[in-house]
Amino acid sequence: MIDPTLLPFFQPQGVVILGASREPAKLGYGLARNLLWSGYSGAIHFVNPKGGTLLGYPLYTRMAEVPDPVDLAVILTPPPSVPGMLAECGERGIRAAVIATGGFRESGPEGAALEERCLEVARKIGMRLVGPNCVGLVNTHLPLDTTFLPPPPAPVGEVAFISHSGAICAAVIDWVRGQGIGLSHLVSLGNQVDVTETDVLAPVAADRHTKVITLYLESVSNGPRFVEQARQAARQKPLVVLKVGRYESGKRAAASHTGALAGSDDAFKAAFRRAGVLRADNSEEMLQWARALAGCPLPQGRSVAVLTNAGGPGVTAADAIEQLGLRLAELQPYTRQTLQALLPAAASVQNPVDMLASATPELYARCLEILLEDPGVHSAMVITPPPPMFSAGQLARTLIPVIQTTPKPVIPVLMGERMVQEAVEHFRAAHIPEYRFPEAAASALSALVWRAESLARLDEQPWQALDADPERAHRVLSESLPGQFLAQEAANELMEAYCIPTVPPRLASSAAQAMELAESAGFPVALKVASPDIAHKSDVGGVLLNVPDAAAVARGFDLVTQNALRVKPGAQILGVHVQRMLPPGQEVIAGAVQDPLIGPLVMFGSGGVEVEGLKDVAFALAPLTRSEAEEMLEGTWAGRRLRGFRNLPPADRASVLECLLRLAQLAADRPELAEIEINPLRVLGEGQGAYAIDVRARKK
Amino acid sequence: MIDPTLLPFFQPQGVVILGASREPAKLGYGLARNLLWSGYSGAIHFVNPKGGTLLGYPLYTRMAEVPDPVDLAVILTPPPSVPGMLAECGERGIRAAVIATGGFRESGPEGAALEERCLEVARKIGMRLVGPNCVGLVNTHLPLDTTFLPPPPAPVGEVAFISHSGAICAAVIDWVRGQGIGLSHLVSLGNQVDVTETDVLAPVAADRHTKVITLYLESVSNGPRFVEQARQAARQKPLVVLKVGRYESGKRAAASHTGALAGSDDAFKAAFRRAGVLRADNSEEMLQWARALAGCPLPQGRSVAVLTNAGGPGVTAADAIEQLGLRLAELQPYTRQTLQALLPAAASVQNPVDMLASATPELYARCLEILLEDPGVHSAMVITPPPPMFSAGQLARTLIPVIQTTPKPVIPVLMGERMVQEAVEHFRAAHIPEYRFPEAAASALSALVWRAESLARLDEQPWQALDADPERAHRVLSESLPGQFLAQEAANELMEAYCIPTVPPRLASSAAQAMELAESAGFPVALKVASPDIAHKSDVGGVLLNVPDAAAVARGFDLVTQNALRVKPGAQILGVHVQRMLPPGQEVIAGAVQDPLIGPLVMFGSGGVEVEGLKDVAFALAPLTRSEAEEMLEGTWAGRRLRGFRNLPPADRASVLECLLRLAQLAADRPELAEIEINPLRVLGEGQGAYAIDVRARKK
Repeated sequence: MIDPTLLPFFQPQGVVILGASREPAKLGYGLARNLLWSGYSGAIHFVNPKGGTLLGYPLYTRMAEVPDPVDLAVILTPPPSVPGMLAECGERGIRAAVIATGGFRESGPEGAALEERCLEVARKIGMRLVGPNCVGLVNTHLPLDTTFLPPPPAPVGEVAFISHSGAICAAVIDWVRGQGIGLSHLVSLGNQVDVTETDVLAPVAADRHTKVITLYLESVSNGPRFVEQARQAARQKPLVVLKVGRYESGKRAAASHTGALAGSDDAFKAAFRRAGVLRADNSEEMLQWARALAGCPLPQGRSVAVLTNAGGPGVTAADAIEQLGLRLAELQPYTRQTLQALLPAAASVQNPVDMLASATPELYARCLEILLEDPGVHSAMVITPPPPMFSAGQLARTLIPVIQTTPKPVIPVLMGERMVQEAVEHFRAAHIPEYRFPEAAASALSALVWRAESLARLDEQPWQALDADPERAHRVLSESLPGQFLAQEAANELMEAYCIPTVPPRLASSAAQAMELAESAGFPVALKVASPDIAHKSDVGGVLLNVPDAAAVARGFDLVTQNALRVKPGAQILGVHVQRMLPPGQEVIAGAVQDPLIGPLVMFGSGGVEVEGLKDVAFALAPLTRSEAEEMLEGTWAGRRLRGFRNLPPADRASVLECLLRLAQLAADRPELAEIEINPLRVLGEGQGAYAIDVRARKK
Repeated sequence: MIDPTLLPFFQPQGVVILGASREPAKLGYGLARNLLWSGYSGAIHFVNPKGGTLLGYPLYTRMAEVPDPVDLAVILTPPPSVPGMLAECGERGIRAAVIATGGFRESGPEGAALEERCLEVARKIGMRLVGPNCVGLVNTHLPLDTTFLPPPPAPVGEVAFISHSGAICAAVIDWVRGQGIGLSHLVSLGNQVDVTETDVLAPVAADRHTKVITLYLESVSNGPRFVEQARQAARQKPLVVLKVGRYESGKRAAASHTGALAGSDDAFKAAFRRAGVLRADNSEEMLQWARALAGCPLPQGRSVAVLTNAGGPGVTAADAIEQLGLRLAELQPYTRQTLQALLPAAASVQNPVDMLASATPELYARCLEILLEDPGVHSAMVITPPPPMFSAGQLARTLIPVIQTTPKPVIPVLMGERMVQEAVEHFRAAHIPEYRFPEAAASALSALVWRAESLARLDEQPWQALDADPERAHRVLSESLPGQFLAQEAANELMEAYCIPTVPPRLASSAAQAMELAESAGFPVALKVASPDIAHKSDVGGVLLNVPDAAAVARGFDLVTQNALRVKPGAQILGVHVQRMLPPGQEVIAGAVQDPLIGPLVMFGSGGVEVEGLKDVAFALAPLTRSEAEEMLEGTWAGRRLRGFRNLPPADRASVLECLLRLAQLAADRPELAEIEINPLRVLGEGQGAYAIDVRARKK
């Protein structure tokens, strides 16, 4: 599954550095130094027109002189020279290059043109490019380091980092070192003229040393392809992403930085959900989650046991556990009795278990074992403030064998900093992730739970309605005008093609015809002015509800058409839509849009003005899996209240679910459908269906 | 303002330790050691019935032998002995004791009884008690250390920590040491049999070495008194609180820990808002905010300038700034031009300002100066990843003079860990708070902004209506049954007493009287037959809506009474209720409850089922200040949409505000009013008022 043209970036036979420098202050020196010091075992070559030697290696003056083997070039020569360098590398038989040089697209139109030239040259000779304007690649296990970053080099470890930002790379190397973990791969992508974040997912996921993949993303190059590839990768390894450009000003900064189009955050959220990618809220969280995912087994559920020797830390942990959607495990009577037999009478054997300050390391270990034997406990947090009677290091040594032999994740919390250092080092040596704060440990546990639950969903397939008629939808759309809203009848036909129940409005061009149509639909009816020029009918007084009889229909026909003309003089009035009025029910909104970057998105939520004001909406990628549709309902108040709430009777939730699935399928089948919105979807009582009352659809 | 009976805890003339031990493994040794090593300059005495010497001091066998001066006792003898020890201390003239011993209320009913005895003894001799079951007191500036915590002792600094948990104290000492800051005071309160978190606020706030007060709270002992005292303290120093027991299971753990009743989180939120106390979400945030508040000047507004040498960190910072409700400063043209003249063409002189990787320490300093001169910039964040071309320490040295001479807060972000250590140490030596992550720095800035805005509000007084009639409300309530809901008329009378408009139904016993009442209420009106024998008036044709004028009222009076009598012959007809019919409008809910711990709370939000399902509600303490009432509206969708939204016309927001203020005053004036709820409050168009349609009230 790995693109063979990318292999030289990950397992090169020989590397040449163009722009290697003898001046230690220059980045070209750093490149040469890092490659040598990395311990890279393939061939190493340096090119500099000035010649001479560098760190004991000859400086070739021309690419042509570079001997075999060589299949990866790292270029750090001035921007205007780069296209020529690529051509020379191509002549020398090289098909992969990292362009570290900056001053391309990020610097303005001139740089962008130069970048285009690089791509042209590379395309012509079938060469793959990483960069330009990037830090390069690190593979700590091969080993290989093509960066110019100042030493010390990235520590060896199990976390891969893929980044749109070069500056963050240097910080990440130093952060992971501070956290006592290491990197397997570092991939700095720069301007991504060719190789993108999506391209490198498969090779990194295939790396046996990598246990977790972290990503710093400013956007994605191709939404659907990213989702596809990330989903593949997530089946093998957990992915944790820090996606920036979340807020408006963030987006502006991203745009000025990479020129990439930042998609809407809802679309990214939906894409990450589908791909099984865990999204961190900030840089620190990304690293702390990666640490837990690299070092802990996955829990079988959400119930956490908390073991501590004091009340305060237990309450703090309990708060954090609840806040993150985990829960405190209910301990079995047997567990509580066994604990009680070991502990002083004043100890608390409810979860959080408080052993009191007199607890020894041995008691910690024994109580932890007892908790882990409880089948209702899926994971555990063991907390200690700086202990007054023994060293935290002693506690760590006693706990490590217990933690290493249980299949359940156990996270030690060493509350403190300097006084717990010995314990920290013991745990790190044993590859057990430890945290300084109960809240951080709870967050780490939540990442483990998320991964376990997400992994179980990764093989789910989108739902498909066999009775849908994509051809009919295609025909309806092909008969509609691009960029325009579809006529009401056409929109309703789309619903019919996907078997979504409607209450079709029938067009009456006269009061008499309106009376006839109303008689056949059954009273009461609704009357709505029909005009291609009027989008929001109720805003112009163009809607009349609960019209009880034929005479009122005739009067109503005149009223709504006159209202519409008064507010929008000159509007083309086709007549009035007559529509059966359904019994009352809950009303929700369901829709779909084509996100320019990510693809078709489905939306569900509270309708009316609430949809914008309260933002009680959920988005997901189309087509939907059943669990995604369920989550959309559970994630909104509009969806939760379908089960009934106080004096609100339960509504036909199953029909709403089906409507969402069908609507999603329509959006996925017909990318030419720019947007569609059912507002409202009237949901009747259980078993009585959900009806699209008003449907607006626009063709691309 | 400081209670003189508490002075011995903060400035004792002489300290005696009861239970001082010669065995280094015992806590009683730790107590003696810490007091000696703290450098406490008053008299130091040890008591132990075994006699001998300890650390060069005599061990007195009885309290009576202890010489002058001595005004503070620290007790660590077995629980049953403590009441006797207190009595002995009292005889020796001591009026303040710290009971470090555990095994009281937290251990069960027996311990609770013992704790009560301690209090009785102390009350009899006028002695104040801290504890039992506490770690004790530290004052690093006096200096004084009455704890048994293992060394090293708390570092000297400017942050006070007041705690309901002893275990957290040891962790906080170590955490602050790790963060390069120190403590002024540490107050561990234990079971709070006497002295509470509220009592110690004034003495700690008065301490000139303390710049910030942090609190770990599981509850508060007396809500209204806490608010009052915390508000006093917050006028002098910023208060940052970590309040645990926020979630259900957290609450359970707190209850088993201290036996304290954890009030509802909404009530605490309202109390902290009123008191001007900043609430941290977790332990780490509390410390990081305290660090910023101790070391930075306060900003004049929310606009932040971000200075960096790379794009990624800038976007990350921008995201965090927006997420926290701050904003990126819009730079003035002059600022941008000045920056452009200094920076390479490809640099970004929009905020975030990206100087590019070539930026030197001098350029950092110069650009920072330029940004700080911009009047639209209220604070700045200076970010550097581990720099490749110079040391981070060099950057720190260059930036420090700029940061120290500006009145605006500047927060350095040193992205990394080990490679930025030199810079970290320079900043710490200069008392400039620095952070490792842009997100943490943004959070610190948000705390500074919060403090600045909160300080400005601290002198605001609750609003008071001079036309309110508390006596009338009192009379209405005293005529109602305890625990029962008030009759509709009585509830409406409460509204009238506080001048909250209602649409009361008025009884007319004749058509003529009905016409009169209708004229005074305003047309249109509703007519409803009044009969104790008719429950469902509309079923008997006893209701007439939208009656437009006096003549129609006269006809209507006859119609509804005759209808009623035709359907229910013999029914007792009292007449007809005449009620003004309001035009449609927005509907909201407003209410008040007495929180058992915190006191009267006002509530505002979306009505209907939404109020519980969507939780679109805000709470505040009664009586309300104007800014609190404003925040309740701005903090809810129900309140925001009063300004109008899409096709929803603006409503009479001012009347809603006034209704909230009046309702709050009623709740504050009448604590016997257990709860009251206006649902709905109908809000008409601008200038047309807001009317309590239905009012439910319950007496305690």
